[in-house]
Amino acid sequence: MTESPAEAGGPAAPEGVPVAFQDPSYLAAVVDLLGAIAYGAISAFERLAEDAKMAPTLEDKAELAKMASTEFGHFRRLRDRLGALGAEPYDAMQPFVKPFESFHGRTAPSDWLEGLVKAYVGDGLSADFYREIAAFLDADTRRLIIDSLTDAGQSEFVVDRVRKAIAADHRVAGRLALWGRRLMGEALTQAQRVAAERDALTALLAGGIDRPGLDLAAIGRMFTRITERHNERMAEIGLSA
Amino acid sequence: MTESPAEAGGPAAPEGVPVAFQDPSYLAAVVDLLGAIAYGAISAFERLAEDAKMAPTLEDKAELAKMASTEFGHFRRLRDRLGALGAEPYDAMQPFVKPFESFHGRTAPSDWLEGLVKAYVGDGLSADFYREIAAFLDADTRRLIIDSLTDAGQSEFVVDRVRKAIAADHRVAGRLALWGRRLMGEALTQAQRVAAERDALTALLAGGIDRPGLDLAAIGRMFTRITERHNERMAEIGLSA
Repeated sequence: MTESPAEAGGPAAPEGVPVAFQDPSYLAAVVDLLGAIAYGAISAFERLAEDAKMAPTLEDKAELAKMASTEFGHFRRLRDRLGALGAEPYDAMQPFVKPFESFHGRTAPSDWLEGLVKAYVGDGLSADFYREIAAFLDADTRRLIIDSLTDAGQSEFVVDRVRKAIAADHRVAGRLALWGRRLMGEALTQAQRVAAERDALTALLAGGIDRPGLDLAAIGRMFTRITERHNERMAEIGLSA
Repeated sequence: MTESPAEAGGPAAPEGVPVAFQDPSYLAAVVDLLGAIAYGAISAFERLAEDAKMAPTLEDKAELAKMASTEFGHFRRLRDRLGALGAEPYDAMQPFVKPFESFHGRTAPSDWLEGLVKAYVGDGLSADFYREIAAFLDADTRRLIIDSLTDAGQSEFVVDRVRKAIAADHRVAGRLALWGRRLMGEALTQAQRVAAERDALTALLAGGIDRPGLDLAAIGRMFTRITERHNERMAEIGLSA
């Protein structure tokens, strides 16, 4: 064993883990964040696999199954990273079960197209949000998070299918635009709930003595950016936000 | 372009494809077989993802999600191989939708343990069957099939969970043993149905002018071997077959 930070007098941090984690509140925040993203990934796996049942063709079903498998791959890496940070991965995910399940429970798609829009919007929203937060993290954690947001070509598939459906029947656009707004609303509700309950996470955004943070105005601008990107995505898919 | 078998006067076969495929009935049989295995893989993906919902813990759920993702990986390779052989992959899978869906429809697990036993028995049975058939194929196809049967550690997980459940409540063993027999029965029913309907596949087993095949006695011995291995698997999991 080589000399570890713990032996040198600092707080315990597993070997091979960046020095930033010597700050226990930073470690707690990152464990919270990775727990949230990991649970989000496995719950996305479940929902995509469920929605795949509504696919009109075997080929479409395979596309959703591919997205589900990609989410499982992200889950696995995040879970392993939690373990490497010395956390019990499933304990770290537990606080986020309820918000994610509430979100999914309130936004169960009633057909294939709603499922596609949900996959696209949900994926985009969470990617934007995680990317914003990742800017406040150490390089290793940031890279892990950014990598776990890689789009496996699903956007192209969804955009193609939804645009075709709208071209075939224009009434579809109004219904799906409403659906997109509802998804956004429910996602914000759950994000707010998590922010209210998870002090470590909000402390991360608010910064610390030695770490720059976001003031209320900056948090407001962040949500404005996320909303704007959501609107762009809706436009891309042929829907008014 | 280099000189292809087609230009040399033989029947058309895509480039990079073994010479065995110049026999159109062999090509048809392999397309059928890969179509069956591919559809089996994506339908296993769906069922495992569905059964994951019954998991008692998040960790158990992740194990089933891993199996589902592994099945999707197999599906993807088999589908790509079908394309490389010049077949329309989803057309090749179509004849097997009904038998697999019938099997799954008749064997919907009523709880988590039944789901585990089904994953274990179903995976084992199909692996044994495909391995037997693979012996009659060209080396490339054989390798692809054998690779797509690799156990991703799921057996160990299932054996552990089922043995623990039996230790906790001995009555579980009787119920799951019955369940295992029912799974075997339904699998044989569907295999028989496929054999009766897919001439190319049965011709492969029966052999051809230039290819050794199985006579009825040999087919009987093959099913005996498959049944014996099923019994071994049931014993391994702590159940009488």
